[in-house]
Amino acid sequence: MDKLKQQIAFILEVDKLKTIYRQSLIADKSRYENDAEHSWHLALMAFLLAGHTNCRVDLLKVIKMVLMHDIVEIDAGDTYCYDESAKLDKREREERAADRIFSLLPEEQCREMHELWEEFELMETPEAKYAAALDRLQPVLLNYTAGGLSWKKHGISADQVIERNHRIEDGSEKLWDFAKELINDAVKKDYLA
Amino acid sequence: MDKLKQQIAFILEVDKLKTIYRQSLIADKSRYENDAEHSWHLALMAFLLAGHTNCRVDLLKVIKMVLMHDIVEIDAGDTYCYDESAKLDKREREERAADRIFSLLPEEQCREMHELWEEFELMETPEAKYAAALDRLQPVLLNYTAGGLSWKKHGISADQVIERNHRIEDGSEKLWDFAKELINDAVKKDYLA
Repeated sequence: MDKLKQQIAFILEVDKLKTIYRQSLIADKSRYENDAEHSWHLALMAFLLAGHTNCRVDLLKVIKMVLMHDIVEIDAGDTYCYDESAKLDKREREERAADRIFSLLPEEQCREMHELWEEFELMETPEAKYAAALDRLQPVLLNYTAGGLSWKKHGISADQVIERNHRIEDGSEKLWDFAKELINDAVKKDYLA
Repeated sequence: MDKLKQQIAFILEVDKLKTIYRQSLIADKSRYENDAEHSWHLALMAFLLAGHTNCRVDLLKVIKMVLMHDIVEIDAGDTYCYDESAKLDKREREERAADRIFSLLPEEQCREMHELWEEFELMETPEAKYAAALDRLQPVLLNYTAGGLSWKKHGISADQVIERNHRIEDGSEKLWDFAKELINDAVKKDYLA
């Protein structure tokens, strides 16, 4: 029962991910998206789009990664991907968060969480490349659908979006081709500078 | 590209799950939980609590089920589990929703979604029993943590909670023992009538 109680403490702690808001609006533009919903959307996308990866992937591992990849933001907050100054100490803030939050779990699962998160951050394995591709494609898709409001608010240019998102290609050339179509169309519609 | 465009249309359609609100408050009591966050929470729980199932399960299948099990509520709405009259036409409303929403997908994935949802609803396989156990345990856990506010608002009794949730036992005796502890404690604290 002790192990279960540690797991339940973690499950309740990560409920806070529902209160960490991102810079993307949900598709109907009614409000900003939170990290828990974003993670759900990525997990479902991982399942549906697995036929488009460059390499074969262990889908269960990809889904575990995207379900947990933003948990560190409970303490570290959401760092906007186009905010260069906030990115400077992002890694340090997130490491402290990982140490605190993952250590609520039984030892073996704490280690698994650290390993999944490290693998995701390094973007080297086929699973991490695919997870990173989804984590980039989903906000592009939402921002495009919501009429580019978030891009316009922050004065983001097409070059910035391409620089940030071209690594989608490492996980899936097919998804990057699709993302480029969206970005080109976003420029035509004046969603991007 | 056509197949991908169908998948993207589905991925954007199900964004609406972020706007379907449930009767449970999130743990900090600040607002009601939506279906997308709930589904994320279940998927993470499926991963963490898999060591407590009665039978061995195909974890990837369980996670797919919990990620998609509430998509029908985009059209059918959330049916409160203690609302006996709303339950009467629940199945009919949800079947219509499944037909419309899943058919946005390419044929093979449309069929997989129907099959996963049917399996979840029937609660017969080890995977469906475990998924159903999580879908019952999570709101009990949230309602308990939020001081029973949702149970009190609807005047829910311990007997109703036991009647609704005893099938947690079919997926995991260990999780049902834990849920019973919570329910007993909720009675002592006057969260439940």
